[in-house]
Amino acid sequence: MTGTAFVVGVGTTKFEKPGSRAWQYWEMAKEAGGAALADAGIGYDLVEQAAVGHCHQSSTAAQRAVYELGRTGIPVYNVNNNCATGSTALAMARRFVASGADDCVLALGFEKMAKGALGAGADSGDFAASPVARHYGIMAARHGFAATPPTAQLFGNAAREHMERYGTTREQLAAVGEKNHRHSAANPRAQFQDVYTLRDVLGSRTVHDPLTKLQCSPTSDGAAAALVASERFVRAHGLQGRAVEIAGQALATDTEETFASGSCIDVVGRPLSRAAAGRAYRESGLGIEDVDVVELHDCFSVNELLTYEALGMCAEGDSGELAASGATTYGGRWVVNPSGGLISKGHPLGATGIAQCAELVWQLRGEAGGRQVADARVGLAHNIGLGGAAVVTLLRR
Amino acid sequence: MTGTAFVVGVGTTKFEKPGSRAWQYWEMAKEAGGAALADAGIGYDLVEQAAVGHCHQSSTAAQRAVYELGRTGIPVYNVNNNCATGSTALAMARRFVASGADDCVLALGFEKMAKGALGAGADSGDFAASPVARHYGIMAARHGFAATPPTAQLFGNAAREHMERYGTTREQLAAVGEKNHRHSAANPRAQFQDVYTLRDVLGSRTVHDPLTKLQCSPTSDGAAAALVASERFVRAHGLQGRAVEIAGQALATDTEETFASGSCIDVVGRPLSRAAAGRAYRESGLGIEDVDVVELHDCFSVNELLTYEALGMCAEGDSGELAASGATTYGGRWVVNPSGGLISKGHPLGATGIAQCAELVWQLRGEAGGRQVADARVGLAHNIGLGGAAVVTLLRR
Repeated sequence: MTGTAFVVGVGTTKFEKPGSRAWQYWEMAKEAGGAALADAGIGYDLVEQAAVGHCHQSSTAAQRAVYELGRTGIPVYNVNNNCATGSTALAMARRFVASGADDCVLALGFEKMAKGALGAGADSGDFAASPVARHYGIMAARHGFAATPPTAQLFGNAAREHMERYGTTREQLAAVGEKNHRHSAANPRAQFQDVYTLRDVLGSRTVHDPLTKLQCSPTSDGAAAALVASERFVRAHGLQGRAVEIAGQALATDTEETFASGSCIDVVGRPLSRAAAGRAYRESGLGIEDVDVVELHDCFSVNELLTYEALGMCAEGDSGELAASGATTYGGRWVVNPSGGLISKGHPLGATGIAQCAELVWQLRGEAGGRQVADARVGLAHNIGLGGAAVVTLLRR
Repeated sequence: MTGTAFVVGVGTTKFEKPGSRAWQYWEMAKEAGGAALADAGIGYDLVEQAAVGHCHQSSTAAQRAVYELGRTGIPVYNVNNNCATGSTALAMARRFVASGADDCVLALGFEKMAKGALGAGADSGDFAASPVARHYGIMAARHGFAATPPTAQLFGNAAREHMERYGTTREQLAAVGEKNHRHSAANPRAQFQDVYTLRDVLGSRTVHDPLTKLQCSPTSDGAAAALVASERFVRAHGLQGRAVEIAGQALATDTEETFASGSCIDVVGRPLSRAAAGRAYRESGLGIEDVDVVELHDCFSVNELLTYEALGMCAEGDSGELAASGATTYGGRWVVNPSGGLISKGHPLGATGIAQCAELVWQLRGEAGGRQVADARVGLAHNIGLGGAAVVTLLRR
């Protein structure tokens, strides 16, 4: 690539329980996109392309959504990568800009999800068609299945495997739920703002043992937007003070190795996340030791643990201890999911990856209010979609 | 952009009536993608990204499909722009390469459509969410609606408007159906290979007056693939003799002007097609006078007429006369839809735009067999999706 790309404006809606607010996806998109333009202080007429992510809307929902911001005839792409859709749209926008093709591209993501239809993050239609389905038989034989959503079963079984292999405890898994719900209390855009004790988390309804409800992301509606711009654009519009650099970014999909594995931990994506992180570190010249704040894909508590290991925050097997130690909350080595994460902020599939970026931009600019991470200079976003892709992004102010 | 992009390999399946062959979308994709790799004489391990178009499959169908070719961990994008999906994937691949970011990108498109579920090209769910729906009320008041698919109504009403405004005749419209069915007789990959008289076309069942069945694209299954590569890649792999240059390409979406219009002709996309063509001509330095062979989006006969006008092949209103004159078939000024077009080759939404590219590559290389256009040096592809985008591509050998 020939240049550097910067995030110059971000915006999100509050994430909401489906059905709790009467809005259409294009209304969400207008709210988030308009907020991103206002944040950058630029008009929509400067946007040269729009990469728009959603999983459950129609074939031209991207157009329907961006036309609320303006009708300027620019190229618009409908993009989908399951739960990694938002960061995939962001990666497209970044590539278009970093390669010198464009100076200002809108990444937009939204989802209006069916109430209660999707369990915890991905529907069975997606699941059935994904390579993950190939492993279903192996896991069914090993662990048995209950009448819970497939994703909850997959991640629940990965949690059991982690407990068996590494001695991880239920309390360590629940510590992630406790932390992320606590963090969200300072996030007015989060779907929930309720604080729970570890005992509350452990005692909430079992979704797929060992995962309890307060360790699972809910079904959510919402939208998020980010404007990605070239260095030339940043200078021309005097945005140096607010622009955040995308220092590295990588999108990884399955390899023969992950296909061949019979491990639930591999199937739900630890190797994919490690691969994406490794490439993003190499591209940026940054390492996990440089990172201050992390927004990662805690669709279930166990995935936060697996991602600690994939990002190099600890050795394989040590993530339960890390979570319980306080090292990933305020006052610790990193603050992970200051927004509340998917577990408490919510998880509208198309929006999630861009909302992670928005939170990091606010953190790196020092605009995160009651959830500000002190002196945050480097942020890492991690977004993964089962059967789709893992995307890791490094942001630097 | 910093460089030129070339198509170095293409492949398609035969297009088929849904249900007539027991295959899954990933089997189609493997067949088309494998053919494109074989055509280029390169291995899948050289592919750096995959832009994959489909409208009706799941959120991770792109991954499911490309994994049949290899599991190398590369970025994979699920892309959708309704009936313009294939060319949108191609445009992404071209941008990634032309901007210097990649040396070899796979554009892949496929569709496994529900038998009889989609009428002639787009489903009502897409339609309902598209900006086109805003015009539905206007047209219903002007023309009335029957129990036919919305797209057939929209294009049928555009045909009526063309007849009223310009004196276009039913015979001129039917001439497009006659020509494209005749062309497909030489295309073993076409869904149909039957020749009809003008009287046959006029006498076939009325879908939405004045459009008869033999002037409408069918519902189809199928896949198509194109490998897009940099000049450096072409030289390194000795592909100079087979590479076809993408000399210009543009993707246009709606503007305030098209939104405001109450004309069916505008609503179905003549202004969008004109905008995309104008940008592609400017970028390439080529004009319609340089073009020898055209593959255009004849979802209905009337759209071939509207596109003649949008591409500058004749003045507005003169397209009926042009079609009836023989100027757009073998021996005429241009050969339009030598493949049989959407009307007779078929229209699997995600594949169509890439299959147009494949036909032009074969024509420009002189490999089109019984449907070869003599001494073809410049080809133009035109693909449009209602509510989505118009994409025009200029290919040069």
